[in-house]
Amino acid sequence: MAKELKEVVNREDNYSQWYNNLVVKAGLAENSAVRGCMVIKPYGYAIWEKMQRALDDKFKETGHQNAYFPLFIPKSFFSKEASHVAGFAKECAVVTHYRLKNDPNGNGVVVDEDAKLEEELIVRPTSETIIWHTYKNWIQSYRDLPILCNQWANVVRWEMRTRLFLRTAEFLWQEGHTAHETKQEAIEESERMIHVYADFAQNWMALPVVIGHKSENERFAGAEDTLTIEALMQDGKALQSGTSHFLAQNFAKAFDVKFAGRDGKEEYVWATSWGVSTRLMGALIMAHSDNNGLVLPPKLAPIQVVMIPIYKGEEQQAAVLGKFNEIAAELKKRGVSVNIDDRDYLRSGFKFAEHELKGVPIRIAMGARDIANGTIEVARRDTLEKSSVSVEGIESYIVELLDTIQENIFNKALKFREEKTTKVDTYEEFKKVLDEKGGFVLAHWDGTVATEEVIKTETKATVRCIPIDAEDEEGVCVLTGKPSSRRVLFARSY
Amino acid sequence: MAKELKEVVNREDNYSQWYNNLVVKAGLAENSAVRGCMVIKPYGYAIWEKMQRALDDKFKETGHQNAYFPLFIPKSFFSKEASHVAGFAKECAVVTHYRLKNDPNGNGVVVDEDAKLEEELIVRPTSETIIWHTYKNWIQSYRDLPILCNQWANVVRWEMRTRLFLRTAEFLWQEGHTAHETKQEAIEESERMIHVYADFAQNWMALPVVIGHKSENERFAGAEDTLTIEALMQDGKALQSGTSHFLAQNFAKAFDVKFAGRDGKEEYVWATSWGVSTRLMGALIMAHSDNNGLVLPPKLAPIQVVMIPIYKGEEQQAAVLGKFNEIAAELKKRGVSVNIDDRDYLRSGFKFAEHELKGVPIRIAMGARDIANGTIEVARRDTLEKSSVSVEGIESYIVELLDTIQENIFNKALKFREEKTTKVDTYEEFKKVLDEKGGFVLAHWDGTVATEEVIKTETKATVRCIPIDAEDEEGVCVLTGKPSSRRVLFARSY
Repeated sequence: MAKELKEVVNREDNYSQWYNNLVVKAGLAENSAVRGCMVIKPYGYAIWEKMQRALDDKFKETGHQNAYFPLFIPKSFFSKEASHVAGFAKECAVVTHYRLKNDPNGNGVVVDEDAKLEEELIVRPTSETIIWHTYKNWIQSYRDLPILCNQWANVVRWEMRTRLFLRTAEFLWQEGHTAHETKQEAIEESERMIHVYADFAQNWMALPVVIGHKSENERFAGAEDTLTIEALMQDGKALQSGTSHFLAQNFAKAFDVKFAGRDGKEEYVWATSWGVSTRLMGALIMAHSDNNGLVLPPKLAPIQVVMIPIYKGEEQQAAVLGKFNEIAAELKKRGVSVNIDDRDYLRSGFKFAEHELKGVPIRIAMGARDIANGTIEVARRDTLEKSSVSVEGIESYIVELLDTIQENIFNKALKFREEKTTKVDTYEEFKKVLDEKGGFVLAHWDGTVATEEVIKTETKATVRCIPIDAEDEEGVCVLTGKPSSRRVLFARSY
Repeated sequence: MAKELKEVVNREDNYSQWYNNLVVKAGLAENSAVRGCMVIKPYGYAIWEKMQRALDDKFKETGHQNAYFPLFIPKSFFSKEASHVAGFAKECAVVTHYRLKNDPNGNGVVVDEDAKLEEELIVRPTSETIIWHTYKNWIQSYRDLPILCNQWANVVRWEMRTRLFLRTAEFLWQEGHTAHETKQEAIEESERMIHVYADFAQNWMALPVVIGHKSENERFAGAEDTLTIEALMQDGKALQSGTSHFLAQNFAKAFDVKFAGRDGKEEYVWATSWGVSTRLMGALIMAHSDNNGLVLPPKLAPIQVVMIPIYKGEEQQAAVLGKFNEIAAELKKRGVSVNIDDRDYLRSGFKFAEHELKGVPIRIAMGARDIANGTIEVARRDTLEKSSVSVEGIESYIVELLDTIQENIFNKALKFREEKTTKVDTYEEFKKVLDEKGGFVLAHWDGTVATEEVIKTETKATVRCIPIDAEDEEGVCVLTGKPSSRRVLFARSY
């Protein structure tokens, strides 16, 4: 087994270390010299790029355009929306100076105290404030609406406990910020975008998600409603994977953004914002991987097929590589990304383990005997099954198999989630399921912040969401016994 | 004429204001609430995205991968390469705190002095230091080389005088950082990338460039050699449009990055870095635009063809739009981006002016008479020529015309540059040409920093580059009369 793999602990023994091992050993990301900031390595970034491309296409199909707003936000902008500043003030990186100088005592460079900013600048933790300040100048009449902007950007939230991809001080994300003429239109936009995220999660990441509304407690700072997609990880914890906010007129009021309506009357503009981040990388890894390494859904795998030659001597090597080149050329024509691993200084066993660790969906191996027999060995990463397949028509076989694997990974995750979703009717049951089985718990709740707080303190579980497709069902809150008209989704979470 | 256009001054009257008017009125970018930081508006960002896509494809074709490194750089990293810190220390945004708190006096939020960082963080002005600190852990043996990484990122340089796209405190760019086994390989990489930039400038931006070496004076802080592409703007000034640096072993030494070579001996790694930025947007605008607005090369135009219906009454409107939809569908199949401007509350004259301002390469207009005659009016943005063309085969006509326009814009810029490139042999002539004609001046120079400094002080011109294809020619320095073996390129510049 490869040296790298030896250092990956088993998922069952230490989930958290298993996750961290995978991220680092598979070459996705690592911690940097700056506390809480990660380096996204080429293999990890290639997956993120595939996510970006797929999401960006979906944004454009739904009429959005990209733009770019400043990294820095004047401190005073922050205070303009009361709940917003309360939500973000405690984790802001603050720029106070704009120059360094040589230390007069000869100790390298020091901050030049003469270059102090009049007003401090905040490194954006999210961009509602600077964007709504900008929109004020873009919007005069209803004809200027809607504005459907998105930006791909880095943001900084000074988190105290960080974990690669899941919670980092700097992360990459996209943030959509839209402006609308009517409340209804803004609500529809926020719903449209949470469905775009759900579609992406399910069809690209092979990750089943529950769409729902956040409780008041967990709402975005400045939103009137937050929609979320919640996914279940293999340790039975939930991961919030994307959110879409109906901001009502809160930011329009804070930044005085009005428009002349069709009736000539001035009104405040209605808003949404929505985002997903590199946290999705964490979701992808934690949802599907196993003790051998990553399991990547083919649609997001930077390399979909790896080909490993088995040979003795140069003649066999040339014959196998010749055949590989033919197959690879044909696969590339069909849009499949292929890597021929012809490194001659590594044993095939090492290569097998390495590509397993990296989650390459299909591994092909071929030796002299295969050539003689007209066969090829095909190994699936998702099931670890190997089979000997005819070389004749191998390209179509591979293309179909990639679809099969994509579907299988999703179905496996869906089955897991279904098994780990439990309806409970008493608080005893609630606690027992959380402790013994984990996963999603569907329970009645009286809808109050106070009850959610008690449950959170006592069980570490929170309302992940009030599912949009929750059925009407009369019941009583598991904690207080007060009436409830539908079950909500509880879980412990990241 | 459209209201927007009225406010664009003539290029001949005030070049600098003309430029600024275009950027703002065409909806490319605007100043933000943060000094020196711009907002890139959707139309401007769409052009930048096209640039990014074309460049990124070229980087990948030449074997590079994208990655992402932290926004922040610990202050101490900066001091490790002496000339690097000297070059950047005076324009750094410095993060000193990580939290805000409510002002005890009730004046909104203030910086929490209890949340002071032990070591200040610099918002990256360029990433050599943090990247080479990271590479130290990635490189042990020659088998780990080369590393061919690029990142798309925002950087901050606290410039005192800023201009949209040309010089902003925050800008977007890509920075390639490569690590090599040999000096020769690193030099070849730096040359390869400057040719990638030149190819992009010429074939996508329709911008002829001179490739050359920077003089010692203008070299990147930390480089042993800087290659540049220099373009000529319509006011006769040069614009440095992209640079590629051979960093020798400077950063490897500063960050102690060694590898075990093929002979088993340890050696410092060889490096390059190379970058282009949103400054290219400035080059694109200033090189081709006229008093009617932008002139975009078709390959970078977000909208290549705009179709404007001319009609009276709903019947004519429906007929023209019906025909437009047919043509647009066919053009889209052929990869042409089309916009049908069916806004019914604007006069066609306004629309004509607006799309001219925005630089849409081809405008198509059609009215009832055209339908009867089987014709369509085609207007070229580059030459402002209009012609009546048969609707039959219009799609092929358009596709070819886009190529013709791309070529014509390049040829026009090339002709302009040739006319504005002057060989001079005396200092009198040198000054006269700069003052009266402007443009590139090819002159002999003794190769010393001192001479370049005097010339700069007296004429505001600098050595833009020592062209890589400069012919051997014996001569004497225009200032000092000392011997010189080839002419170098002088100009005033942005």
